[in-house]
Amino acid sequence: MSDKVNAPFLRNAWYQAAWQEELDSGILARTIMNEPLVFFRDADGKVGCVEDRCCHRGAPLSHGKVVENGLQCGYHGLVFNAQGKCVEIPGQDNIPPAAQVRSRPVVQRQEFIWVWMGDPALADESKIVDYPIHDDPKKYPHRKATMPIKINYIMMIDNLMDLTHLGYVHTKTIGGNPKAHVNADMETARTENGARYIRWMMDALPPPTYVKGAGFKGRIDRWQEFEYIVPGSVRQWSGALDVGRGARENREQDGGFHLMLYHGITPETENTSFYFWSAANGYRQDEPNATEELYQEVYPTFVEDVVIMEGQQARLDAEPDRPLLAIKADNALTHARRAFQKALDEERASMPQAAE
Amino acid sequence: MSDKVNAPFLRNAWYQAAWQEELDSGILARTIMNEPLVFFRDADGKVGCVEDRCCHRGAPLSHGKVVENGLQCGYHGLVFNAQGKCVEIPGQDNIPPAAQVRSRPVVQRQEFIWVWMGDPALADESKIVDYPIHDDPKKYPHRKATMPIKINYIMMIDNLMDLTHLGYVHTKTIGGNPKAHVNADMETARTENGARYIRWMMDALPPPTYVKGAGFKGRIDRWQEFEYIVPGSVRQWSGALDVGRGARENREQDGGFHLMLYHGITPETENTSFYFWSAANGYRQDEPNATEELYQEVYPTFVEDVVIMEGQQARLDAEPDRPLLAIKADNALTHARRAFQKALDEERASMPQAAE
Amino acid sequence: MSDKVNAPFLRNAWYQAAWQEELDSGILARTIMNEPLVFFRDADGKVGCVEDRCCHRGAPLSHGKVVENGLQCGYHGLVFNAQGKCVEIPGQDNIPPAAQVRSRPVVQRQEFIWVWMGDPALADESKIVDYPIHDDPKKYPHRKATMPIKINYIMMIDNLMDLTHLGYVHTKTIGGNPKAHVNADMETARTENGARYIRWMMDALPPPTYVKGAGFKGRIDRWQEFEYIVPGSVRQWSGALDVGRGARENREQDGGFHLMLYHGITPETENTSFYFWSAANGYRQDEPNATEELYQEVYPTFVEDVVIMEGQQARLDAEPDRPLLAIKADNALTHARRAFQKALDEERASMPQAAE
Repeated sequence: MSDKVNAPFLRNAWYQAAWQEELDSGILARTIMNEPLVFFRDADGKVGCVEDRCCHRGAPLSHGKVVENGLQCGYHGLVFNAQGKCVEIPGQDNIPPAAQVRSRPVVQRQEFIWVWMGDPALADESKIVDYPIHDDPKKYPHRKATMPIKINYIMMIDNLMDLTHLGYVHTKTIGGNPKAHVNADMETARTENGARYIRWMMDALPPPTYVKGAGFKGRIDRWQEFEYIVPGSVRQWSGALDVGRGARENREQDGGFHLMLYHGITPETENTSFYFWSAANGYRQDEPNATEELYQEVYPTFVEDVVIMEGQQARLDAEPDRPLLAIKADNALTHARRAFQKALDEERASMPQAAE
Repeated sequence: MSDKVNAPFLRNAWYQAAWQEELDSGILARTIMNEPLVFFRDADGKVGCVEDRCCHRGAPLSHGKVVENGLQCGYHGLVFNAQGKCVEIPGQDNIPPAAQVRSRPVVQRQEFIWVWMGDPALADESKIVDYPIHDDPKKYPHRKATMPIKINYIMMIDNLMDLTHLGYVHTKTIGGNPKAHVNADMETARTENGARYIRWMMDALPPPTYVKGAGFKGRIDRWQEFEYIVPGSVRQWSGALDVGRGARENREQDGGFHLMLYHGITPETENTSFYFWSAANGYRQDEPNATEELYQEVYPTFVEDVVIMEGQQARLDAEPDRPLLAIKADNALTHARRAFQKALDEERASMPQAAE
Repeated sequence: MSDKVNAPFLRNAWYQAAWQEELDSGILARTIMNEPLVFFRDADGKVGCVEDRCCHRGAPLSHGKVVENGLQCGYHGLVFNAQGKCVEIPGQDNIPPAAQVRSRPVVQRQEFIWVWMGDPALADESKIVDYPIHDDPKKYPHRKATMPIKINYIMMIDNLMDLTHLGYVHTKTIGGNPKAHVNADMETARTENGARYIRWMMDALPPPTYVKGAGFKGRIDRWQEFEYIVPGSVRQWSGALDVGRGARENREQDGGFHLMLYHGITPETENTSFYFWSAANGYRQDEPNATEELYQEVYPTFVEDVVIMEGQQARLDAEPDRPLLAIKADNALTHARRAFQKALDEERASMPQAAE
């Protein structure tokens, strides 16, 4: 059962490989689904992705440098283009057809670097998750982070689609009163390519982060909206308005607290992942300090998650077949797992030879 | 043969899990016999021990906190009592029977926390090793330590039941002249539940530690008494009196050197253990400095043992089936091994299904 | 194919175990071909080599000390001579024949400590590599280093017998213009027990190291001569003379640049090795600073090699059976691999039972 232990890799999907700024130095080595890859920005600014292993003697291409016609191996100088084809071999004129390394489709969009880890023929760019928040830095100034975590990628999705942990893991930050979260009013739903839920805590006390961010003086109507998109993306809108402003009817009002979070989880191995996230300040947009403070609040909150989940991962890895106990609060998480499992089943049905 | 390589686990026995002070913060995570356990002191001060893995999603319970009715998981707030029964699940009223984690019998006594690693029905508290030294801190002021060591637990017992190493490993501290130890007068005996020996070095030069401790000016009659109690305890009385005071007839005299040591060895894994020890100052009881100095003398001595034994363990693990060569000086060690083996054989005969 | 992945161990050969100075403290522990060994200099100054494991209880003998009649175990005091025979057991008079540890033939010569890892009956000292440079410190003042590297020993030989990497790996030091190396004039040849090549770069710009060393003002005729001797030695003579001085006819002239390097590679395990090297200053022999500067130039150059090769090793270990692509520049490397393979085939034919 994929809802208990490490979920297998879904191949035919776009995964976030990096933030675009991580390629500023030209070359980035990153292992995804156990494949050592090297991402590079060529002389024209276009992004390429090839395996991080030269076909000549096996040296990691990430030790090389970008030259005019591609990525040059730092050992003996062979040059490869973004399609992985060797275009230069020092000391000889002819380039044999075998002089080639594997390449992966890659797209830069909305500050993300996306990579396709399955059949290249199926790499449809229209299926890349849309995140317009990054297109509007005036309305949504934001900061980003990349955290390597020792957690299976879908285990991390479980955490994001489960908000009852807020009151226990995050007591010092966004948590507030545990019972408020557990007893909140929740609407969950399957979507075409994932799952979604929204929690309402009406007439609640604002937690410290919210007070710091939006200056609430009294009680608030508070919501948390999470949308999971298979396999590794979660878009979050956490917000609040003063009681009496009609939050439930219209959340898009000025003056409240609006935190837009993007969570991207990409499998490095079966039980390690990259956790990419961006946090957008949708409440005091003209104050760079507010964006920085938001980041400084969110960062330790996510570290709290990672600490307990890495402990959890170690326990599950030690006894992977031992059953777990579902409780009522696992409702939204179960929706998300089902959406993932459906995509996995479809992939396996369509290309059984690729099943692991 | 259990006298050559890593001894297997004896299950039906009390093992020292911690010193009582290690639970002062309320919660202690410790792996014993490959089982991740969490020890906690509940709101009434009673000690509990359960597995360090929540039955809900596998998170380590040691990341949680003690609440009024038990130990609360730090992830989603489930609460467990000392018997491992779940007594609270946030968000739901009924608690299913499967909401339970494994527990272990645990006893706090004479500054020790003891845990029973076998069949709970056989956990007889009267079999816990008695150590009255800890009951009389006026006569025996003492200090304690916990050392994690990369050594099989019975390999460490070998070291304690073998005193010929003193002159070679501990030349700078308690060792003194190697030949004196090797040629000492030794009495060894099996006991009901272990082995015992006493060595006499008559008319000997006092080693540096003894001179520092008891101010000897001339030659001494010196003894070392070691009693092994299966599986992991060794009680030691090392002492000396000036020559001519009749040490052999009556050791319980004032004015000499009396060092009472308790050694407790508990298996963490097949080849790592916890080495708990306490050192009691039985010679200058009114001087807290003397107790502290004793501790500061003993500590590096035991580090000397650990350093060479961790090297030994690595060698034996690399070639576990290669024979070793017994020598005459292994006499007492052999007695101790036989006592352990007898207990192991009895356990296996009584519950063959538990044999490893 | 041994030219692709980790080469197996050639047994019947002398390997450099250490520099003689590494034995100044009397005892050196070093693992060679997965065997934990201990080298010691006895009371007479003679070097011995035995396994680093006492026959009594398995303790590492390298924790012991040299005494009058041999190496004394630091645990219980047994003493072994250079042939591995136990010559003393504390507490008993008779020494049984089984009281013995394995020993290895060992020779100190020309600042090297050599060890024989195969059949002792075949250990012929006349087969030890000759390196007269070390005999003449006036003409060739030198400094030495020992680098533990995570690289198969013959993979490191590949690097030394392949000079096209100079222009790519060593751009900041001895590299200079990559094309100059790739297009240089090369003579390669098999030798009786290895392979040899010399590269000529005529009328070339001197690289920074050469200018620093010999004060060249204009263009130079430059050579690099490498001789591989199976299994782990490479003798190197890199030099240059001003254009017009007839370097090609006679290299042994005063006033140019002469760098004599010895490279010794000894397998610790299948994919880790010790890289011993000495760098001799054959151009400004009266200036100790020049020897030190040479060492300070060479050291980071070799670190550049090690960094990219450790990356290469990791890639090859991950997919050991995946083919590599030979290019024209691999010419000399291929000669060296063939010489090694020939020796390996001969050894396996003569003693098939020793094949791995």
